[in-house]
Amino acid sequence: MFFASDNSGTVHPQVMQAMAEANTGYHHGYGNDPHTTAARAALRDLFEAPEAEVFLMPGGTASNALALATIVQPYQAVYCSGLAHIHVDECGAPEFYSGGAKLVPVCKDDKITPAALSDALSFWNTGDVHQFDRGALSLTNTTERGNVYTLDEIRALAKQAHDNGLLVHLDGARFANACAHLGCTPAEMTWKAGVDVAVFGGTKNGCMAVEAVIFFDPARAQGLPFRRMRSGHLLSKHRYLAAQMNGYLRDGLWLTLAQSANDRCARLVAGLRAEGIEILTQTPANLIYFQAPRRIHDALQAEGAMYYDMRAAHAGPDDMVRGRLVCDWNLTDADIDCFLQKLKAAL
Amino acid sequence: MFFASDNSGTVHPQVMQAMAEANTGYHHGYGNDPHTTAARAALRDLFEAPEAEVFLMPGGTASNALALATIVQPYQAVYCSGLAHIHVDECGAPEFYSGGAKLVPVCKDDKITPAALSDALSFWNTGDVHQFDRGALSLTNTTERGNVYTLDEIRALAKQAHDNGLLVHLDGARFANACAHLGCTPAEMTWKAGVDVAVFGGTKNGCMAVEAVIFFDPARAQGLPFRRMRSGHLLSKHRYLAAQMNGYLRDGLWLTLAQSANDRCARLVAGLRAEGIEILTQTPANLIYFQAPRRIHDALQAEGAMYYDMRAAHAGPDDMVRGRLVCDWNLTDADIDCFLQKLKAAL
Amino acid sequence: MFFASDNSGTVHPQVMQAMAEANTGYHHGYGNDPHTTAARAALRDLFEAPEAEVFLMPGGTASNALALATIVQPYQAVYCSGLAHIHVDECGAPEFYSGGAKLVPVCKDDKITPAALSDALSFWNTGDVHQFDRGALSLTNTTERGNVYTLDEIRALAKQAHDNGLLVHLDGARFANACAHLGCTPAEMTWKAGVDVAVFGGTKNGCMAVEAVIFFDPARAQGLPFRRMRSGHLLSKHRYLAAQMNGYLRDGLWLTLAQSANDRCARLVAGLRAEGIEILTQTPANLIYFQAPRRIHDALQAEGAMYYDMRAAHAGPDDMVRGRLVCDWNLTDADIDCFLQKLKAAL
Amino acid sequence: MFFASDNSGTVHPQVMQAMAEANTGYHHGYGNDPHTTAARAALRDLFEAPEAEVFLMPGGTASNALALATIVQPYQAVYCSGLAHIHVDECGAPEFYSGGAKLVPVCKDDKITPAALSDALSFWNTGDVHQFDRGALSLTNTTERGNVYTLDEIRALAKQAHDNGLLVHLDGARFANACAHLGCTPAEMTWKAGVDVAVFGGTKNGCMAVEAVIFFDPARAQGLPFRRMRSGHLLSKHRYLAAQMNGYLRDGLWLTLAQSANDRCARLVAGLRAEGIEILTQTPANLIYFQAPRRIHDALQAEGAMYYDMRAAHAGPDDMVRGRLVCDWNLTDADIDCFLQKLKAAL
Repeated sequence: MFFASDNSGTVHPQVMQAMAEANTGYHHGYGNDPHTTAARAALRDLFEAPEAEVFLMPGGTASNALALATIVQPYQAVYCSGLAHIHVDECGAPEFYSGGAKLVPVCKDDKITPAALSDALSFWNTGDVHQFDRGALSLTNTTERGNVYTLDEIRALAKQAHDNGLLVHLDGARFANACAHLGCTPAEMTWKAGVDVAVFGGTKNGCMAVEAVIFFDPARAQGLPFRRMRSGHLLSKHRYLAAQMNGYLRDGLWLTLAQSANDRCARLVAGLRAEGIEILTQTPANLIYFQAPRRIHDALQAEGAMYYDMRAAHAGPDDMVRGRLVCDWNLTDADIDCFLQKLKAAL
Repeated sequence: MFFASDNSGTVHPQVMQAMAEANTGYHHGYGNDPHTTAARAALRDLFEAPEAEVFLMPGGTASNALALATIVQPYQAVYCSGLAHIHVDECGAPEFYSGGAKLVPVCKDDKITPAALSDALSFWNTGDVHQFDRGALSLTNTTERGNVYTLDEIRALAKQAHDNGLLVHLDGARFANACAHLGCTPAEMTWKAGVDVAVFGGTKNGCMAVEAVIFFDPARAQGLPFRRMRSGHLLSKHRYLAAQMNGYLRDGLWLTLAQSANDRCARLVAGLRAEGIEILTQTPANLIYFQAPRRIHDALQAEGAMYYDMRAAHAGPDDMVRGRLVCDWNLTDADIDCFLQKLKAAL
Repeated sequence: MFFASDNSGTVHPQVMQAMAEANTGYHHGYGNDPHTTAARAALRDLFEAPEAEVFLMPGGTASNALALATIVQPYQAVYCSGLAHIHVDECGAPEFYSGGAKLVPVCKDDKITPAALSDALSFWNTGDVHQFDRGALSLTNTTERGNVYTLDEIRALAKQAHDNGLLVHLDGARFANACAHLGCTPAEMTWKAGVDVAVFGGTKNGCMAVEAVIFFDPARAQGLPFRRMRSGHLLSKHRYLAAQMNGYLRDGLWLTLAQSANDRCARLVAGLRAEGIEILTQTPANLIYFQAPRRIHDALQAEGAMYYDMRAAHAGPDDMVRGRLVCDWNLTDADIDCFLQKLKAAL
Repeated sequence: MFFASDNSGTVHPQVMQAMAEANTGYHHGYGNDPHTTAARAALRDLFEAPEAEVFLMPGGTASNALALATIVQPYQAVYCSGLAHIHVDECGAPEFYSGGAKLVPVCKDDKITPAALSDALSFWNTGDVHQFDRGALSLTNTTERGNVYTLDEIRALAKQAHDNGLLVHLDGARFANACAHLGCTPAEMTWKAGVDVAVFGGTKNGCMAVEAVIFFDPARAQGLPFRRMRSGHLLSKHRYLAAQMNGYLRDGLWLTLAQSANDRCARLVAGLRAEGIEILTQTPANLIYFQAPRRIHDALQAEGAMYYDMRAAHAGPDDMVRGRLVCDWNLTDADIDCFLQKLKAAL
């Protein structure tokens, strides 16, 4: 009953196996090896982007921050949701990597609307040097609240961004979960909708530590190889990053695992609703927010359910407390049912 | 016959096994897991430093740069060898992480002498704000040329550094190879000799991607946790970093592998000398420089020997060209002998 | 009729005179001259702070940014008003100087309240490395909207800041105007109320280009001399910065000029109210916001009144449009009356 | 008898007068005033560069650092003399402004030779991400040792730089002194010889605090306006920077003053040589190095001569000690003769 985060589970056996298979013989470091060549080619195929520049890195924070630092100047602004991971959960990674660019929170919610973006653009950028110059729009799909932008929404925001001189970055820590929900291809969710650079996450969906940064226009990637090196994200034994990605892509594992996580989450949502529990977010992917009296949280957690709640602000046993549940690819229907049973007992 | 670098070989089975064993169940991310607790404790034991602050990261570039950025200010200087990896091979990682600190090359050779340090200190730091303030001395042991500082040498330089207001950083990409050569303990090569912060390398010596940064005075580590997070080097599935380190430390594997690499290198040196090849460096560890006519290099490499040489500057077949040979922990006596045989044939 | 900004008028003759008087003989550069010694002593006297560290710089943006960079780490947050100049009008100076610290807008208004600060602190800082560490609270007095924090308000916020591990910075671009309104001493408005570092502005109040940064605890100023040098704000012919400050402090000129600007502003406010014009801000100092139909703005500006308005968003002649009026120390009652007469004619 | 630096004298009356004349009426801040428009036009005329982008700033350190940060990336190298002011006397300004670019000292002397540049380029840049990418060549004319690059030398180095993918920056703290010596136009010493961005110094040659940064290709200046703002070097009462420059350019004052300083220096050199004193540098401009026994320095300084020497390393009265003499525009023949008389007495 572990719902705290999708970074807390194991590595899928197919990914472990790919790493073990790569563990033979000598290869040059820093990505000059056949595993890396294969992984980059596979990603270009998956994204239907034969010209794309593709980079592998061991984590999402650096992948997003390096992507942004490559497309924005230190004196430019990155427009994002007020809940964007890059804004509130990475201790300033984009600011550090970019040399002091500004993250402008466009809205308090997780999903940016055209109206909110329009307001933010008119407040922040007057064309005067006193304000930050325009840099990029950053979207997260699946969002930090578990919602999913539709292709139409991405298209509209990307067009608005481009019309206003912004490039478009996609934080794809849960890229696969959004893809699975939308039933679209990676290309459709990215460059076909106007995304300029995307992070295709592996770590939260069955890998150990690998993400791909994909620049659809290779000219936009200029400087990233040097920035990756000097920040220490060009791993020397690079083949093991590549092996993870190769294992993750083989036979569509990336999508299978995301679908599995989404399905468990749907089962969880149905069960919660059946008990009259209020769900606070849309529930298309593998992550939801709900609320329940504090005593219910107490009871669930006493029974071993692991997840984050906002109990700190609530003293009374009947106070409504928000909780977050994240479904990992590895959960089973039985895991979900066990949690729901404990809930039923607690109510 | 792969002598290009010790980052090009495989991961030792014991390390792979430790990762596989850790691949079960759910654990909180970001180092809040029992594998990490165990690894940190084991490192404190190994270094006989129960108070030390210990951090794991996936690479040496970031480990060194983060360690330095934590102990020096942006307006301070880091004194290092003119051949130091941090100065010439990391595309400015220390400058980036520190916010623009200066690397001052103390000497053209790999080993810093007290006289050279003294000269550099008097040239660069006059106590005036026009020059960089004094920050740190950085030593590499094993050095980038394959030499090893003795304990006496480290002690003398560290004392000189401290007397001049510098903290002492040790780049230990090949820490174990130096330890094996000196026959000393990790504590003796670090805090007992005056080192303030050390990087204990794993990647080049049988691990996949893990280094430990160890601050012997925990107060010196202030800020590093935030800096590691914002630079993306706090991996979310942290247990797999820890598992590598646990496998690496178990039963003294770290030292066994380094001794093996050193032994192969000694065999190689003896063989080269027997053929009259000039060795350009001291040869205490697993890395040497030698020189031979260009046609010899041509012949060896045609036979499949992989290593770096400085042939670019030399056109004639009899021009003396320098080459670098690095012995990996995984090489066998047969590998060495095969190389020597090819050499004999080429001469 | 120039109300666009208090940075647009002339330099007071007494300040010009002081510069001319300093223009004789040779003096060492970079602040090692008797004019600088005198200015620093005079500032320490004015602030009743014999131990304070005092620095002169040619502008407010750098003064604030260097002060902040000295007291916060790159991974820390600066809490400020959502309208703070450092947040919205300096193109990221604090981010640049600090190496990527985060400006957290505490509120949408210009004056921070304890409740808003409390909310921001609980949202942003959970003690976890994913969020920025706590750094500083930045107040502006006179605020960017022309309001003034009372001594009680400063004391309460400073105490709250200190209780939460924040240092307190005061942006004093219009320091003198606030002092004149409060009828307090500089000491009372700063260290006696809990301010750790203050910028005492000269440029907007009769000087040419000089501000003083004052650290009341000299230990907090560590590193600033180097940071000032490397950012180019340690002017070589430093005596002319000092001369300005000496002229500005002589016979209380700084306060006389601020009182004059405040008095003109009060006359302006009274005149506007007499005509039924709505004033949108409190009006204690030399800066107000008002609103009037667009056609009134059109008429005033056609008559030569210079000031900023938000007309861009308003098309109709009767649309209410906000305007900002700033009174310079050099305006006369006749200037104000002339403006009011034009207004009367336009209405 | 003040020879310590040319930043230690007074401001020329014509420059003071221009500031006084500008001290009337209201003007918009930040360069939107007629004085600035006039100064920029005058500089474009002087440099015969009608398309050039021209910026005024209050000091040389920031002018050079901002110019470099605009033309190099954080992961690029700036090749300069080992004695370059930007390398050894600005506490890391270029590193700070650029976000960690590397200054590569090409030679130990003040003047870069093509051979030395060639060596440095081949050592540092292998095309691999481990090394810094190529960024810029920085020349100083007049050099830090008082020497002057000829037009042929500049042309040859600029061509070599461009052929190797470097842009060319000219630090012109003593631009006018070099121009006076060479008898060339500013255009000949800059863009006609291949310089991409030049700093035209005023502060050391009769101004109070002003330098001009001139990008001959305006497209190269992209981003500088934002960088200048966020670093605090866009002064709000900008008219006074412009007024200085206008006074400095009027009737060729800039060249007259430089010629005067050079002439005094020539008289000084002749006098020293007549007494058998060894001059250590070429002596084309206003700055020389000489050596004499320590007791001579003692005697001169006891008589009131102010200049820097390297006495710290020399104990004995007959030890040869190097000294630096800088001639200010304001020195008279009598000042020089007075110094020479004291010298004669001391010998």
